[in-house]
Amino acid sequence: MNYRLIVFVFGELALILAALMCVPLIMALGFGENSAAIGFAVAIAVCVAFGILGLALRPPKDKRDLRPSSGFAICGLFWILVAMIGALPFCVSKAIPNYIDALFETVSGFTTTGSSIIPVVEDIPRALLFWRAFTQWIGGMGVLVFIIAILPRNDKMSTALAKAEIPGPQFGKLVSKLRFTSRILYAIYIALTLMFVALLCICGMPAFDAFCHAFATASTGGFTVVNGGILAYNNIGIEVTITIFMILFSVNFNIYYFILIGHIFKALKNEELICMLLIYLGVVAAITADITLSKTYSSFGEALRYASFDVASAMSTTGFGTGDFATWPVLSQALLLCVMCIGGSAGSTAGGIKVSRLLILSKSSVNNLRTTLSPRSVRAIKLDGKAVDDATVTNVRSFFIICAFILMLSTELISIGGSPDGSFGTNFSAVIACFNNIGPGMGAVGPYGNYAGYDLFAKIVLTFDMLLGRLEILPILMIFMPKSWRRIS
Amino acid sequence: MNYRLIVFVFGELALILAALMCVPLIMALGFGENSAAIGFAVAIAVCVAFGILGLALRPPKDKRDLRPSSGFAICGLFWILVAMIGALPFCVSKAIPNYIDALFETVSGFTTTGSSIIPVVEDIPRALLFWRAFTQWIGGMGVLVFIIAILPRNDKMSTALAKAEIPGPQFGKLVSKLRFTSRILYAIYIALTLMFVALLCICGMPAFDAFCHAFATASTGGFTVVNGGILAYNNIGIEVTITIFMILFSVNFNIYYFILIGHIFKALKNEELICMLLIYLGVVAAITADITLSKTYSSFGEALRYASFDVASAMSTTGFGTGDFATWPVLSQALLLCVMCIGGSAGSTAGGIKVSRLLILSKSSVNNLRTTLSPRSVRAIKLDGKAVDDATVTNVRSFFIICAFILMLSTELISIGGSPDGSFGTNFSAVIACFNNIGPGMGAVGPYGNYAGYDLFAKIVLTFDMLLGRLEILPILMIFMPKSWRRIS
Repeated sequence: MNYRLIVFVFGELALILAALMCVPLIMALGFGENSAAIGFAVAIAVCVAFGILGLALRPPKDKRDLRPSSGFAICGLFWILVAMIGALPFCVSKAIPNYIDALFETVSGFTTTGSSIIPVVEDIPRALLFWRAFTQWIGGMGVLVFIIAILPRNDKMSTALAKAEIPGPQFGKLVSKLRFTSRILYAIYIALTLMFVALLCICGMPAFDAFCHAFATASTGGFTVVNGGILAYNNIGIEVTITIFMILFSVNFNIYYFILIGHIFKALKNEELICMLLIYLGVVAAITADITLSKTYSSFGEALRYASFDVASAMSTTGFGTGDFATWPVLSQALLLCVMCIGGSAGSTAGGIKVSRLLILSKSSVNNLRTTLSPRSVRAIKLDGKAVDDATVTNVRSFFIICAFILMLSTELISIGGSPDGSFGTNFSAVIACFNNIGPGMGAVGPYGNYAGYDLFAKIVLTFDMLLGRLEILPILMIFMPKSWRRIS
Repeated sequence: MNYRLIVFVFGELALILAALMCVPLIMALGFGENSAAIGFAVAIAVCVAFGILGLALRPPKDKRDLRPSSGFAICGLFWILVAMIGALPFCVSKAIPNYIDALFETVSGFTTTGSSIIPVVEDIPRALLFWRAFTQWIGGMGVLVFIIAILPRNDKMSTALAKAEIPGPQFGKLVSKLRFTSRILYAIYIALTLMFVALLCICGMPAFDAFCHAFATASTGGFTVVNGGILAYNNIGIEVTITIFMILFSVNFNIYYFILIGHIFKALKNEELICMLLIYLGVVAAITADITLSKTYSSFGEALRYASFDVASAMSTTGFGTGDFATWPVLSQALLLCVMCIGGSAGSTAGGIKVSRLLILSKSSVNNLRTTLSPRSVRAIKLDGKAVDDATVTNVRSFFIICAFILMLSTELISIGGSPDGSFGTNFSAVIACFNNIGPGMGAVGPYGNYAGYDLFAKIVLTFDMLLGRLEILPILMIFMPKSWRRIS
């Protein structure tokens, strides 16, 4: 492993992080929140120290090559380091006194999970709430894609890093020049976010709240800045706007690129997009019927309002809650949990298994049944009319199996310390919610609960689950495989 | 499809079923249970009618060939028909007045699930209780393996049927002559069962109870004939004996064959066996520690007693309960649920995913990770030192993925009618318990609950889950694929 290169790249990353933290620092000074200001100052100082160290160890130009396999390990390591620094302001300012708690909250932000251990968000200084929202927005697009977008970098190295970080079963569909690609993606991301902030302000949300919620929605994170959640505004306009944007941000960003360059028809014919929208509409219809018939809400209109918002929130893995779905009938709960596991599209900011993986899994399983029955009929699996290569199919299937193993193991591990409400279901839903980067689960960790009831060990396990889910397993797994580190150096 | 052949073979099967039902008929007459006797008489009459029809339509000798793919469809169909006839005594005698309820109970028996909708078993006539226990024992070894064992049959046809019915990822390891094999398997099965009955009687269990519990244990079914379960006897000897035999019956029967022919060392070196025993011991240790430390039981000895029995019961998917594990700490519950899903060995009477599949799944996933990191290193997956062919690996992975889909879909379906105790977890555990042929789940369907709280539609779905689980999906799926029926005719 080229350690000098790693320290150098991390130094650059730390300097960018320092620059980003200046925004909440200025806010803290402006709001007169001194403890928060000190917190940010400390964190910025640590970043600058890392930056100087990195620049001092800068390797010569011809030694800046990175293999794809090294990319995975570096990616996992950098996310953890960035979260460790990002947690400092919470801890130093005593807003979240315990460092593990602060780390949980920060990883939850960067991974766009939105699980919180804060019982009352109004008790937290506003600059820190802004930083918490901002971490989601930074993480949504990928911490490393960010540095690829703004720093000059050779393409081989960029590919190695980006491959490790961008979610979804296939990579590199968009355009070949990676720096160009990531700039386009960021441009779309920023434009949509700003549009969204403007719409929220028009609907009557205060500017601070609008920015924070826009960050939470764009990244499909789901941290709010009011304890009552989005429902506290009691504003249909805000709810509808957020619903639409939650769906928009769980669409593969490539589709927006194709629309921008005029291939609108090609973009809208996308199989994953169509499938995702069909799942969304089907589940909204089923849940609306279920909660209307069970008289959970007084009218069909109200049921539709809660169902359309909460399904969009679950599918995009944002995790905002309006209706308290823990009180819904069992069918609605089961459907919601199902949609949470599926998640959004590949190449979006949403978490979960992703719709395209679900398509590949179902198609390959049907194919396999067919082959078992008539061994001579071998057919290729197609997505968007193009054959999916065998390696991708195998990887998607492995991904699914490893996910199941991780969910099982994590549930056992967090159960060692018991459960906040003594229920096995709560622990299982907590693992699902963290691993799929959703945020709220069921029971004690439901939309109106939080993760404060877990012990430190469980919080550490859940923190790793969030990272494993966001980076799709491999980068985090690599950190625990020192053998591979040596082999790929 | 060769319909005449199907009717002919089913006719033979019906006659065997009639012969088997004579045992409980005689018991009913002996106990003076007239309603039960009428029930059995009706069912036997139906069987004889089918038998006569089958013999009348007997196809010529040269038209008795069956393709492997037809075997699957016929296998699924026959199981359903056998269960439909087997349910008649319960329904006609009014012991279980609703036919769907009776069918649920009978399928639960034949599939060795052991889920019951009977609130108080003591209210049921004893001849019916015996029949209920007997269905498990018949189903444990396979309804069709049974007819292969006792009827003259061409080998091609036997293979087609047996392949569809015998659980596990690989088939045909034992000996090439299938009729010979199934007779050996039955000899082992009968010998172990009789040995077990004798031991139970020596421990002090009444003979009727001993036979019923031996049938329930040998098949890993789990129906009891006393409402308090095995704990009602309050007899350590009985508990220890049952624990040992639950484990013995979840071992691949091939191992007993190898021991019989003197290859003891080869038999005990079996990777699946070692892995299964290690999982058993590990989980017993963990649960004993957990329930001792949490003071669920007063002493270490008591904790060990409940843990060793309940883990054996869960792993073998028998589903006898001694400790009410719904009151255990969350970690123990999570571990037990995990062991339930894994199940026993392939080629045993146990349900679940099977330990050998778990081994293939984990090895292939690790292999896949390795290939992702260094694409040039291609290694074969080995089990017992022999390479597992790619087709098996693909099938095992498909099986796992399809299982996950079925569990998801079934949970949604049974949730349409709500949940007996309003909990999503109960519904999910009910589906797991039925699909893995365990019996009791969590909450309202826990070891001291029953399935009476579900509506008819949910019971039908759970009935199909039991069949899907026992026949490992394909045979039952085939019934719903009329296209394949035509293609494979």
